[in-house]
Amino acid sequence: MNYFSSDFKLGILGGGQLGKMLLTETRKFDIQTYVLDPSDEAPCKIGSNKFFKGSLMDFDTVYNFGKQVDVLTFEIELVNVEALEKLEAEGVKVYPSPKTLKQIQNKGTQKDFYSANNIPTADYKRFESLTDLKAAVENNEISMPFVWKSTEGGYDGNGVKVIRSMESFEGLANVQCIAETMIPFKNELAVIVTRTPSGQIKTYPVVEMEFHPEANQVEYVICPARIDDAVAEKARAIALKVSEAFNHVGLLAVEMFQTEDDQILVNEVAPRPHNSGHYSIEASYTSQFEQHLRAILDLPLGNTDSKVAGIMVNLVGAEGYTGNVVYQNIETILDKDGVTPHIYGKKETRPFRKMGHVTIVNEDITVARKIAEEVKNTIKVISQQG
Amino acid sequence: MNYFSSDFKLGILGGGQLGKMLLTETRKFDIQTYVLDPSDEAPCKIGSNKFFKGSLMDFDTVYNFGKQVDVLTFEIELVNVEALEKLEAEGVKVYPSPKTLKQIQNKGTQKDFYSANNIPTADYKRFESLTDLKAAVENNEISMPFVWKSTEGGYDGNGVKVIRSMESFEGLANVQCIAETMIPFKNELAVIVTRTPSGQIKTYPVVEMEFHPEANQVEYVICPARIDDAVAEKARAIALKVSEAFNHVGLLAVEMFQTEDDQILVNEVAPRPHNSGHYSIEASYTSQFEQHLRAILDLPLGNTDSKVAGIMVNLVGAEGYTGNVVYQNIETILDKDGVTPHIYGKKETRPFRKMGHVTIVNEDITVARKIAEEVKNTIKVISQQG
Repeated sequence: MNYFSSDFKLGILGGGQLGKMLLTETRKFDIQTYVLDPSDEAPCKIGSNKFFKGSLMDFDTVYNFGKQVDVLTFEIELVNVEALEKLEAEGVKVYPSPKTLKQIQNKGTQKDFYSANNIPTADYKRFESLTDLKAAVENNEISMPFVWKSTEGGYDGNGVKVIRSMESFEGLANVQCIAETMIPFKNELAVIVTRTPSGQIKTYPVVEMEFHPEANQVEYVICPARIDDAVAEKARAIALKVSEAFNHVGLLAVEMFQTEDDQILVNEVAPRPHNSGHYSIEASYTSQFEQHLRAILDLPLGNTDSKVAGIMVNLVGAEGYTGNVVYQNIETILDKDGVTPHIYGKKETRPFRKMGHVTIVNEDITVARKIAEEVKNTIKVISQQG
Repeated sequence: MNYFSSDFKLGILGGGQLGKMLLTETRKFDIQTYVLDPSDEAPCKIGSNKFFKGSLMDFDTVYNFGKQVDVLTFEIELVNVEALEKLEAEGVKVYPSPKTLKQIQNKGTQKDFYSANNIPTADYKRFESLTDLKAAVENNEISMPFVWKSTEGGYDGNGVKVIRSMESFEGLANVQCIAETMIPFKNELAVIVTRTPSGQIKTYPVVEMEFHPEANQVEYVICPARIDDAVAEKARAIALKVSEAFNHVGLLAVEMFQTEDDQILVNEVAPRPHNSGHYSIEASYTSQFEQHLRAILDLPLGNTDSKVAGIMVNLVGAEGYTGNVVYQNIETILDKDGVTPHIYGKKETRPFRKMGHVTIVNEDITVARKIAEEVKNTIKVISQQG
């Protein structure tokens, strides 16, 4: 297959920042792209060969879009799977496959999959509704505290809540959910695995999510994780096992907990480029976005080693600011060694909206960590004065 | 000035591969771009916010284009300078300035500039026409062999010829030209210097152009150059001196000869991203394209050090092939360690047309050099079978 400067067309469902960073790679290789997104102001509107506005959840929209391309991928899981199934049945290559997506889209199904495949994960119970879960708590079938997760539709921390008392249920939707045992963990880790249709598999190094000591919010993604080699090896091996079980094509980001006693438990996976892999653009021999592209086109996978240590800081909208975005003090961080801001191109900021990220690279991870903290304390995503 | 996700507009004259690689950086920072190029199929048609088709040499076209932007730059020197001068006079920031461009556009003026500024360069004489030059040769005012260079319009080795006898003149245009002393040199080197309007200056490491032993054609651009530290330091110092003399804004690529006795002579300069800096995308902390953008926007310059050694191989159309391009064996080179092809996006190949380049990075420069040779011997730019 001739992908380069040819009539070949890659379709991408979703036109957000992940799609945008993927387009950097399709442009580098001059591979034609069609992108579908519901927003007229999607970051992928520029950089794609053809942009289509439409719903990712509408069967006809996704189907008609998919019929125009040779290979179809997605940058967000919330897409119409039935349309993907019909497209696949009609010969369009859909990577990751609708089968993989279905195994992952519903968190209950995903957990069942881990159980069935002997993949270590926190204990859980499934419930058809919040009402059923409440009844189980009242009947002492499960005990608090535990972690509530809605099985569908959750995104970026939405749809997850720690339940410490009956009051914690307030405001939660009455939807299908799981109750998961709370795991006291030392570290939250992630490993990205990539697999091609031909079966070539490569794993990236283990990254570590460093949390704010009080806010319980990821502050830094650090590569390599500052953990023992033995733990890192175990995490990579488990991620590989997860990848082999799913038999997916493309990237699979495997999020894991390192427990107090150094067990590795799989938390959840995402079958696409992932926040935990953004560091790879500057730090790795092959960025996760190039790797995803290589995978879904069945090209040889690239080297996943790092050239240097990398740390990623998310740029989210500051509280109290809504409106046209201003990246306050961005000039100051650009003056620091090895600092690269990525601005996703959303005109309007809102509290906690993901607006961009900053990568800090250095040969010395402790220097990178120090600069990352300076970056975090310097740049602020605010809005223009009215 | 707020450049990021704002109404600020950067204009780029020329929509070729250099512009395209610059657009990767403007997209990363979400900076709006307008691009002007005569071709409807320019690589920059995708990735710019607005693309204009028109002549870069036409006063009105360039002027009207420039009036719509806040900062104007170019990726090719063959643009209408008078329009740039008028735009600058009317308050548009033009970087590099039309003054710099005029000093460089004409190779005779450029050589005079080196003489006036005590910058070491090969001896030369200027002639108003080929007729005048021939007369000088016939009158023994200059002796063969020497290097003929047309002062204007030369590009990529066009407009340069070694004159060994009167027959060598055949086919040369009767235009303004210079005759330059032939320099027996050990190495051809280059250093990229960047300067901001505020006067911050940074130099990249010295790169080496390795020539094919017979074909007298650059085969590899290698960073760092495999030369003595003392020579490298001298080359960087001279490049800095050239930069300071021009007082330019943006990138300045300074091409130099290392003579048999380790003198450094300036050959010529280009006030823009340059083929000799392509390695920086994968190998440097800051790519030359990001650096040019930082410079013309008066942002702090990035670290010019390399993370790893880098080697660049040009992808030019193979002889005997014209038509829709095919990158033969590109899958094979993608399987090699640290190999990144850049496909410029020109649909049609022609013999010697620059269609892309490949970067090879590795911690060990000798390993990179070995892989670069494999790449060079493997990939071939041909056309589809009819």
